[in-house]
Amino acid sequence: MRRRFEEWIARLQEEIVATFERHDPTAPTFRRDSWVRPQGGRGLSCVFSVSPNDAILRNGDIVLEKGGVNTSILQGIMTPAAMKQTRADHPSIPADLETAPFYASGISIVIHPRNPHAPSIHMNYRYFEIIEPPKADSEANSGEAQEKVLAWWFGGGADLTPSYLYQDDAKHFHGTIKAVCDDHGSALYPVFKKWCDERFFIPHRDETRGIGGFFFDDLCEAPHGRFSGHAADHRPKTAEDIFAFVQACGNAFLDSYLPILERRGRAPSSEHERRWQLIRRGRYVEFNLVVDRGTRFGLLTPGARVESILMTMPETARWEYMSELGTDPETPEGRLVEVLRNPREWV
Amino acid sequence: MRRRFEEWIARLQEEIVATFERHDPTAPTFRRDSWVRPQGGRGLSCVFSVSPNDAILRNGDIVLEKGGVNTSILQGIMTPAAMKQTRADHPSIPADLETAPFYASGISIVIHPRNPHAPSIHMNYRYFEIIEPPKADSEANSGEAQEKVLAWWFGGGADLTPSYLYQDDAKHFHGTIKAVCDDHGSALYPVFKKWCDERFFIPHRDETRGIGGFFFDDLCEAPHGRFSGHAADHRPKTAEDIFAFVQACGNAFLDSYLPILERRGRAPSSEHERRWQLIRRGRYVEFNLVVDRGTRFGLLTPGARVESILMTMPETARWEYMSELGTDPETPEGRLVEVLRNPREWV
Repeated sequence: MRRRFEEWIARLQEEIVATFERHDPTAPTFRRDSWVRPQGGRGLSCVFSVSPNDAILRNGDIVLEKGGVNTSILQGIMTPAAMKQTRADHPSIPADLETAPFYASGISIVIHPRNPHAPSIHMNYRYFEIIEPPKADSEANSGEAQEKVLAWWFGGGADLTPSYLYQDDAKHFHGTIKAVCDDHGSALYPVFKKWCDERFFIPHRDETRGIGGFFFDDLCEAPHGRFSGHAADHRPKTAEDIFAFVQACGNAFLDSYLPILERRGRAPSSEHERRWQLIRRGRYVEFNLVVDRGTRFGLLTPGARVESILMTMPETARWEYMSELGTDPETPEGRLVEVLRNPREWV
Repeated sequence: MRRRFEEWIARLQEEIVATFERHDPTAPTFRRDSWVRPQGGRGLSCVFSVSPNDAILRNGDIVLEKGGVNTSILQGIMTPAAMKQTRADHPSIPADLETAPFYASGISIVIHPRNPHAPSIHMNYRYFEIIEPPKADSEANSGEAQEKVLAWWFGGGADLTPSYLYQDDAKHFHGTIKAVCDDHGSALYPVFKKWCDERFFIPHRDETRGIGGFFFDDLCEAPHGRFSGHAADHRPKTAEDIFAFVQACGNAFLDSYLPILERRGRAPSSEHERRWQLIRRGRYVEFNLVVDRGTRFGLLTPGARVESILMTMPETARWEYMSELGTDPETPEGRLVEVLRNPREWV
């Protein structure tokens, strides 16, 4: 599975980067940086951000302001603390294991368009394994023996973060996701949509990051805490079925987002709308740095590649004290805030 | 002490806000928002940020871009988790106390000037008490009895965050602080300068937030972990002496900062320098949201006033992927990064 997953994320990365480059020929091409982690692992980061001078010179033309499409493969030993935390989310890890080798690979995308009417998007899929620790005095240590996988799972999802609410966009995005989910089990979309609203929530602001999408973790053959009773029968359970589902999700990324980008990427916009967009980007930063477990875990990992972890950050963000923007529910800004406070069913 | 400390921070707040308003008549006046926390407490936030349109219209004139001068007074019950964490830093808290009422008051200042050559400044002083829990069936519950203070301490400090390094500014700032410290004990400056470099450090960037200043906490009559041997005799120990030291520090704030602001606040600057300033503001945001214990503690406190906690944020911050700015040690940007990697003795 490792090899097949790695091949799939590499192919998907290539396809998505090439499509964005075709889609916005005025934006800089993505920088392609491959890196190696001394403690074990490697990756390819494809990222760009528009410099302020470029943005001013070519204002109106630029569709993408900052974007990153990263793949990474990590191997190492879980610390007991990391193991304890991981076990809380993944009950299939054997209870008596204090530490063990792990394998993790994944693809991660964040795109921040320039236009205030075009939403940011985030997508991530990952495959994880916990490996049996090598026995000090056995033949298994010879390097020839097959590693034994004690636990494995898939996780991922995608969510949309607009500055201005367009029902059409929300319906298209959620509709695309729902169709993919429904193909692989009728229980998936309702469970994963709710999970996304819970996950991308900023407690100190009492609002979600955006209009959601879907999120899942710990998808494996073992019983899953979020599927019980009837629902447990309507989700993929074998490694093959789950991988097929994850591939279908990733392959639908461009369909779920590009039509929205085409509709909104070059819409007329004002300084006022740009200001609100930058305030919303400030909330994006707050979510990533204060709330998001993945980012915090990454920044605390020794030898982590900070530039790749923080490729999710917007090019510019803004903080105002007690801003009046968004406080009046009769304004376009207030209408967005209303759905962030009260997540809706879009399809 | 509570009443005297509260009076002092209120007076200091008024003096500092009035001075900044006189100093930059083109900037908006501070908004003065007084607030009450339902769970116990109150405060006065004096904050402004310049809107982007104002900044463009009056570019070159504006000295202050965003500023906050806040006072707050909080009372409540420490949760066992907060108590445990607080005890780690404050060994004078009785070891058998699982929870107790607390009192905390303080003044907090962050000023972000507009000009890339003018440094941001942060200052904070606070007074803290742990109170004996009321006994359920005693007269002490009548409301007439005096509360018994089980532990108290002062904390605070100030630090300077430039985007471009000026040795004169660093020497003036540290020199002012050192003179105040030396008046109250020869052991203070060396200990508090080092503590500040440790405290305002961004581990994932392997650099300090700025060029430091001084930081102290847990200053009370009990022995202090950072002063041992000879040094323990050369620091203030009684409540009166410590309060006198804290007042002297706070009263020296304007002397430590205004001459620097006058020298740099209207200096000629380029788009390139502005871009670097905004990248440095991004690091400021990373410190506040990822590292700073005070901000994280505040955001996790139920009923906390998020707008007051996040007044420390810059007006605008910027993230570039693998920016070339700051990587060449022969450039002005690289010379700043060099001292953030290797903190220096300035006086």
